[in-house]
Amino acid sequence: MHRTSLSDSECPVARSLDQVGDWWSILILRDAAAGLSRFDEFAASLGAAPNMLARRLAKLVEVGCLARRRYSDRPPRHEYVLTDKGRDFYPVLAALLGWGNRWLAPEGPAMLLVDRASGAPIEPVVADARTGRPIALADTLLAAGPAAGEEVSRRVAQAAAAVSLDDGRSIR
Amino acid sequence: MHRTSLSDSECPVARSLDQVGDWWSILILRDAAAGLSRFDEFAASLGAAPNMLARRLAKLVEVGCLARRRYSDRPPRHEYVLTDKGRDFYPVLAALLGWGNRWLAPEGPAMLLVDRASGAPIEPVVADARTGRPIALADTLLAAGPAAGEEVSRRVAQAAAAVSLDDGRSIR
Repeated sequence: MHRTSLSDSECPVARSLDQVGDWWSILILRDAAAGLSRFDEFAASLGAAPNMLARRLAKLVEVGCLARRRYSDRPPRHEYVLTDKGRDFYPVLAALLGWGNRWLAPEGPAMLLVDRASGAPIEPVVADARTGRPIALADTLLAAGPAAGEEVSRRVAQAAAAVSLDDGRSIR
Repeated sequence: MHRTSLSDSECPVARSLDQVGDWWSILILRDAAAGLSRFDEFAASLGAAPNMLARRLAKLVEVGCLARRRYSDRPPRHEYVLTDKGRDFYPVLAALLGWGNRWLAPEGPAMLLVDRASGAPIEPVVADARTGRPIALADTLLAAGPAAGEEVSRRVAQAAAAVSLDDGRSIR
């Protein structure tokens, strides 16, 4: 029921979460990005029960984030590789890694991203592609896109009202 | 049990997911970013059962993403507002919104981010803060940070092995 209501949502965040929004799925995408492709590799990395893992892999294939590819005929064996859509989720993982390193690594970061060619450390930041400016809540506003319906219009209006309330507060 | 193993992980993505890695929590952070703060507002937005919502809010307060603040003494009423840590999760939501708009909105985007001052549309992209270059899987590599232990060393080695395998494949 929850899943249905999420995929029916107009909100792109809710739709994304409907497809990859439990942490098993996100960790599978993380592992796939790190080059794991075989069932046993994912199972070992995640410490996951086979039936649970099989379900999550099937779901990720179904929504088009992973492709299932036969790599051996005898015995028949399959591997799971990222599709373009799944690969495009990698920046979200990078943003999550950045947040984790900033807030959840008091002993210093254990894992970093580096540039593959130069080895220079990468500091993931979510920015506006047009201006290059980092995105911060205080500088943005929700807006209705061309396909907006009732739900998004309501959320956009709520968010706008909250902003003017905030502005009023900060003036006082 | 799973939660424990995630928070024990050295991986910053796994740690992040331990704190906010179910879609209810992420949607609560989305709603808080959009200005919702009261229990009833979250409940209405999410269509969530009260006990489930109370549990998620308490967890987000416990991990320091939300602060619980009394806004009325009689009757006693509390609201939930983003902390600095919770507000810093907003760019991850923006990245998720971008992915959702790219891959899950065949009818066109319903919801957009715009610049609060100018109204210009924002296109969220995850980039390297130092170079401004968008982060893509093919250009990055995992590396061990100063606090790396056995787990991260293993993941880094696996990822490096996968890269050289890939390179070998593409040469052929």
